[in-house]
Parts: sequence; structure tokens; C-alpha cells
Amino acid sequence: MRVRVGNKYKDYKSVWFENNIIKLIDQTKLPFKFEIVSIKNYSQLYSAIKKMVVRGAPAIGIAAAYGIAQAKNQNKNLKKVADYLKSARPTAHDLFYGIEYVISKIEEGFSGTDAAEEYALKIIAECKRIGMHGEKLIKNKYRILTHCNAGALATVDYGTALSPIRFAHYNGKKIFVYVDETRPQLQGARLTSWELYQEGIEHAVIADNAAGYFMQNKQIDIVIVGADRIAKNGDFANKIGTFEKAVIAYQYKIPFYVAAPTSTFDTKIKSGAEIVIEERNGTEISMISGKRIIPQNIKVCNPAFDITPAKYVTGYITEKGVIGWKELMR
Amino acid sequence: MRVRVGNKYKDYKSVWFENNIIKLIDQTKLPFKFEIVSIKNYSQLYSAIKKMVVRGAPAIGIAAAYGIAQAKNQNKNLKKVADYLKSARPTAHDLFYGIEYVISKIEEGFSGTDAAEEYALKIIAECKRIGMHGEKLIKNKYRILTHCNAGALATVDYGTALSPIRFAHYNGKKIFVYVDETRPQLQGARLTSWELYQEGIEHAVIADNAAGYFMQNKQIDIVIVGADRIAKNGDFANKIGTFEKAVIAYQYKIPFYVAAPTSTFDTKIKSGAEIVIEERNGTEISMISGKRIIPQNIKVCNPAFDITPAKYVTGYITEKGVIGWKELMR
Repeated sequence: MRVRVGNKYKDYKSVWFENNIIKLIDQTKLPFKFEIVSIKNYSQLYSAIKKMVVRGAPAIGIAAAYGIAQAKNQNKNLKKVADYLKSARPTAHDLFYGIEYVISKIEEGFSGTDAAEEYALKIIAECKRIGMHGEKLIKNKYRILTHCNAGALATVDYGTALSPIRFAHYNGKKIFVYVDETRPQLQGARLTSWELYQEGIEHAVIADNAAGYFMQNKQIDIVIVGADRIAKNGDFANKIGTFEKAVIAYQYKIPFYVAAPTSTFDTKIKSGAEIVIEERNGTEISMISGKRIIPQNIKVCNPAFDITPAKYVTGYITEKGVIGWKELMR
Repeated sequence: MRVRVGNKYKDYKSVWFENNIIKLIDQTKLPFKFEIVSIKNYSQLYSAIKKMVVRGAPAIGIAAAYGIAQAKNQNKNLKKVADYLKSARPTAHDLFYGIEYVISKIEEGFSGTDAAEEYALKIIAECKRIGMHGEKLIKNKYRILTHCNAGALATVDYGTALSPIRFAHYNGKKIFVYVDETRPQLQGARLTSWELYQEGIEHAVIADNAAGYFMQNKQIDIVIVGADRIAKNGDFANKIGTFEKAVIAYQYKIPFYVAAPTSTFDTKIKSGAEIVIEERNGTEISMISGKRIIPQNIKVCNPAFDITPAKYVTGYITEKGVIGWKELMR
């Protein structure tokens, strides 16, 4: 991804590996400070994942893959390191997958560093292809709505939902992006807006409440979001609020696309009803930027994800191409 | 409205008039501090309206009515006072109406204080009747969704959307209220939650994004919101986000009611398309509680209201009874 450093632009990944050190863009400091954190051992990595210095399931998976490679190079007990890292965020599937992938490759005799790099490159290549396929859905002068941050920060490079937007921009299309601020954690306002600004892509941050208003007023031509998990029937889990946007888009006949690599499709799950929704800490709602907005004795409900039924989805943008909902069902 | 003061409960209005002083519950300090502000002249009142110490169109109208009565008692130039107060918030219709009402009564020979009290009592009585009519729609064990603050704070007592909720509670029904936090200004999280807590009504604050999730999961039985203006065909303007909730409720066949006195019906306006939407300052989104969450160079769009088409409304709860949409059209 493009990042402005002083008066110049530099190409960055949100996670990379250099001289046995894991480098992370500190996502807790954005958008106000661009800082690179150097992770020298697995306990530093554990803490970085836990505190969301690195966030986004694919980015966490890659950081953990590098963590195993680093531990191997430091002659650490890999079993112990793996168990510890897995406990940092127990719900992110990629975290487990990235760790297991590198360990199995090491057991097969490969270098841990090579295995982790291979893992990272595979995901980056998939995101790039998602961008190249999805870009075709975006016409010149399109106004696009996105929710949360399914960007390069979350996937190391390009992003999922943001990848087609990047490629449309690279290909000279004039586009405008409406960015849902995405309460409670404000990933849209803080991270998606930062990424778009760095790329020079025109956009505006809006309250989540206003997305429907812009759809109703014909100011949005297409909606593109990411996904945390897609069931066999096409129902998908994504950041809370995605479902509301999908229903409004459906009512107003606005194309609604889900951008995700095919690895996000979980064919073991028949429908969205089988996906368990994580209830996160209420302080994400009752406190903003460390400041309390709701008194401590007031009850808060904070489901972190919702399930959007497949009928609201126009298509899935994957690394293999754009798949329609009916195609998926075959 | 009931307010806990120390270990006791006291009955309060959000605005009242006492020995020629206008008393206001300071809504900028809630929910953390319960403070009464004493307004001794019209320039203090202007500033209180402008800084939203008093907010909610009916409450502003009543405060301004008392302002004219006070100015009359202080032998001020009423024309000058009226023009100045009207400029505090140029969009709220009630502000103009409250001022003109008292001035015309004074010209007819009535006392300003009597006229202002009469004006306030009329609105309070309407809100009470809205509560008594609307209460019948709320069954025992109902879980109710509301948006923004259409409560006693906004209308001096009872509220519009919150009045049926209060009366259901007074009548011993066991209810639970989901309160949309209502970004950008958080009137739900700060004010509605405060009112419900004072009354001892069980509730939880949720991110606006989560309302759809709870509707989809059959955790909401009825939606009740207020309205800023209702067109002849039943389309209505209300706080941004209302429209999204109405569309989801419609999809999931959840009754969706608008609570407002008949004076909110603007028969001069044929449909919602004629209502101009106020675009408010972007800092309402880019700053929360005085802390910046989005850098200054990032564009923000901040429509303050949206229009919900009449087809999504099950009925209108007015002081005259509950009117169905089809009845309204006759």
C-alpha cells in the first residue's frame, strides 16, 4: 500500500519480516501517527496481537506465521510458542491456520522463514487478484460504500473490499468512497479513511446511520464489504452493521458485493445460523478514545458481528473471479 | 420525569419558570452531572439554546416562550429579544412558534407569564396523552427499540417516543428498551439512557449498527421513534438513522410507530421530498467528547436527519390516538 512519508510515497505492507524481526504498522496509533513496531520475540508478538497493534484476521495470521519462523530461528520450543500465540485472540481462524501452516512446513523439512514468506505471498497475491477481478464492477464516476476496514492494513497488502477500489483508482477511474465510521471500534473512520487518503482516493467518512440516507438519495452506486466467514449457502458474517447496509441496498436495488478469498468460504457450515456471534466488551461502546460516554452502571450490548443472508448479496469477489449467488449454490 | 436526587426521587421538568427565572436541566452535562442552570436574561437564554444546554424542538420552544415572558416582565424591547432568540438555532420550528405565541397573547392583553405557562402545559398534556394512547401498543414483556432522544428532556416532560414506554412501565408492564446510541451526537447513549435509568426502566445501549442484528434475531417486538416533521402523505423527518431502522423493521415485520403531537404534521408539505435536510458541522463526527478521532484534512459528510417514507410506518401515535397510515391518507 502507498504511504506518504514526508514529501515522498513509499510502498508498505502492514506486516513484514526483516533480519528475523517482525515489523508491524502500529494500527492503534493510526491515523494520527505512522509508527513501525519491531517485534523481537513471541511474547512481544502476543502482546501486539492482543492489543490490536496488528488486527484483521489475515494480517494476524501472517504475523503469527512470521512469529513461528522467528521462534524457530531462535531455537525456541515451537509447541509452547504456538500455544501461547494462539491464546492471544481465540476467535480469529487465520491465527491458528498461519501457525499450523508454518509448523507443518518446518516438520516437512522446509525453512520456517521460507514457509512464512510463502504464506504471506499467497494471501497478498489473492488480494491482488480480488482487486483485479472486482475492479471491473466499478465504473467511472462510481460512488462506493464500504463498511469497517477490509483494507491493506487488515490483509498485509491491497485488502479485500478495498482492493477493487485501489485498482479502479490505479486504472484512472474517477471514484468516490463513502466510508462508514463503523462503531463501536471506528475502523472505518480511523483505518479505511487513512488508507484511502494515503492512496489519494477521494472519500468522506460518514456516521453509520447516514449510509441508508445516501443509498436512498441515489448517491451510492455499489456497496463492497469484506467477510469474516462465508457459509456454504452464501450467508456471511462480517462486522456489525453490514447486515443493515445489505438490507437497504437490496431495497434500493444497489449492487452489494462481498470481497473475500475462497479460503473464507467455510463449506463445513451450511448456513449463517451456525456461526456464533462474539459478544465483545461493553467498554468498546461506553468509552471512546479512553473517555467514558456512558456511566458504568448502564447495561451495554455489543455483538461484534452480524450475519447477512445470501439473498442480499449480488456476488462474491474472490481471487478466482466474481461468483454470483446462484453460481455459488450449484 | 422522575430524577434520583441523593437517595430520593423528585419530579422534574427539563424546563420551568420560577420567580421570573428560567430553570433548565443542563443537557450538556448529562449523564454524568445533574445540574440546573438559572437563566436570568435573554442573552443567557440565547447562549443556552445555542450551546444545547436545552435541546429538543418542543423544549427549545417552551424555553423561548418563557424567555419572552421574562423579557416582558423586565420591560425589554420584545421585538429585539424575539429576533435575537430566533437566531440561536434557525431551523427549529418550535423556537419561532413559542416566541410568536407568547408575543401575540401579550398583544391581546394577556400576561406573558400566563401565556408561556399555558403554552408549556399544552405540550406537556399532549405528550402525556401520547403516552396513554401509545402504551396500549406495548404488551407485557415487550422489547422496544428507540432511536435518539424523544424523551422528557426534549419535550419538557414525558417525551413523545418515550412517553408510551414510561406509561407501560407505570402500568406495571415488564419491558426492555434497546437504545440506539445515535451517532454522531449520542443522544441515545447520553440522554435516553439517563432518562430510562432515572425511571428504573430496564434497558441497554447498543451501537446503531447493532439494531438490525437484534431485529433479525427476533429480540425486538416494536420500534417507537419521534419525528421532527411529518408530511401530508405520512413521510417523516427524524434523526439520521431512523430510516435504516424503519426499513429493517419492515423487512422483519416488526411494528414501527412514530410518536408525535398533531402539531408536528405539516400539511403544507405534500411529501418528504419537500423537507430540506440540514447538513451539520463535520466536527460532530470527527471529534467525540472534545477528542479528535479523524484528522482535520479528511472530508466528513454529516446529514443530521433523514426521511422515512410513509410505507414503512405502521402508525402515528398522537395526542388524539393512534392513527394508521391509511387513515392518515384519507
